[in-house]
Amino acid sequence: MRIGELSRRTGVPVPTIKYYVREGLLPAGELSSPNQASYDEGHERRLRLVRALLEVGGLSVAAIGDVLTAIDDKEQPVHKLLGTAARRMVPEYGDAAGQDDAEAVLAREKVARLIEARGWHVGPGNKAVGALEAALASLARVGHGSFAELLDDYAEAAEQVARVDLEYTARRVDREGLVEAVVVGTVVGDAMFAALRRMAQVDASSRIFAQELPE
Amino acid sequence: MRIGELSRRTGVPVPTIKYYVREGLLPAGELSSPNQASYDEGHERRLRLVRALLEVGGLSVAAIGDVLTAIDDKEQPVHKLLGTAARRMVPEYGDAAGQDDAEAVLAREKVARLIEARGWHVGPGNKAVGALEAALASLARVGHGSFAELLDDYAEAAEQVARVDLEYTARRVDREGLVEAVVVGTVVGDAMFAALRRMAQVDASSRIFAQELPE
Repeated sequence: MRIGELSRRTGVPVPTIKYYVREGLLPAGELSSPNQASYDEGHERRLRLVRALLEVGGLSVAAIGDVLTAIDDKEQPVHKLLGTAARRMVPEYGDAAGQDDAEAVLAREKVARLIEARGWHVGPGNKAVGALEAALASLARVGHGSFAELLDDYAEAAEQVARVDLEYTARRVDREGLVEAVVVGTVVGDAMFAALRRMAQVDASSRIFAQELPE
Repeated sequence: MRIGELSRRTGVPVPTIKYYVREGLLPAGELSSPNQASYDEGHERRLRLVRALLEVGGLSVAAIGDVLTAIDDKEQPVHKLLGTAARRMVPEYGDAAGQDDAEAVLAREKVARLIEARGWHVGPGNKAVGALEAALASLARVGHGSFAELLDDYAEAAEQVARVDLEYTARRVDREGLVEAVVVGTVVGDAMFAALRRMAQVDASSRIFAQELPE
């Protein structure tokens, strides 16, 4: 199909499609004549994926490039690929984890105890571990260290979600689909869970506070 | 204390503190002489909160300004304040929700059924509802509509997390602390849950895939 048809099918404007091609997020169309490129269903699917990562995941163009590189790298075994894709999905948390104050030391101890208590197979170099330590240290620094008491309830819920995530991922048959499921599921899953948490909070809040404070 | 002492206690450089004051994120210090401002513990606490929202929450300076305005507005009743703070914490999801294709229509139906099935008190105008609809529609558009089958498991986990969130919030005695707990808990709670979900996924993935694909 021509670029105009690709634009019509996906709702993405033609100049935006050309921008994605220049940035390497979308392979160039095949030249059917010197100034006429042809696009196929592979382009359409990739374009929709880029839009989902942008609009729902809120990833930067650079981060999306990293994710697509991981999907397209056929050299790595599936087991490693999943780890690579998962690592690129962990948001960066500034330099909070790099600090070495009392709060950072205490946060590392708390996370180590949690991992041991739950029997999780997670290496200490895992970026999610660093992100969790940074979150806990920041809480302590703003006087909300007691929020960390909820850690075990959070971990319990996270385990349930991760279990259904993996069941969904393991259904995929080809390696590209497997990695794509991890990437999409991770990014959109975060957005989905955050939205559901807000909705459940509104519900819980209306039950707890509305009766005490009628308007 | 002087600005140098405030900087030493919080680890925030003096020029950055002055920038926050100019941007309205931090009240100016009290002038003790024409070119000497004095800061107190209130400044220190607010400064740590700003850093947490920036570093852990990843909020923009403008978004942090909105959140602080909500905290400082003493006019609203607590019940409304919590709603206001919660709404500002919902990330924007582009215009995905505004589309009116088959995927958007289907996503709205799915979310409406979920809210009814769980008996949640959530208005249809709630931004989290729109965010969830946008996430589901995007999934369908990239060929991962079946991820929505996990919705009920996600909602179950989100309800557990929201319950402990509210228990934590309801412990606060003053209105400023209440709203601050909602804001910090919401932003940092998302980061905490996302990190825990990654860790639990790595654990589940190593159990499922590592044995099939030894390296």
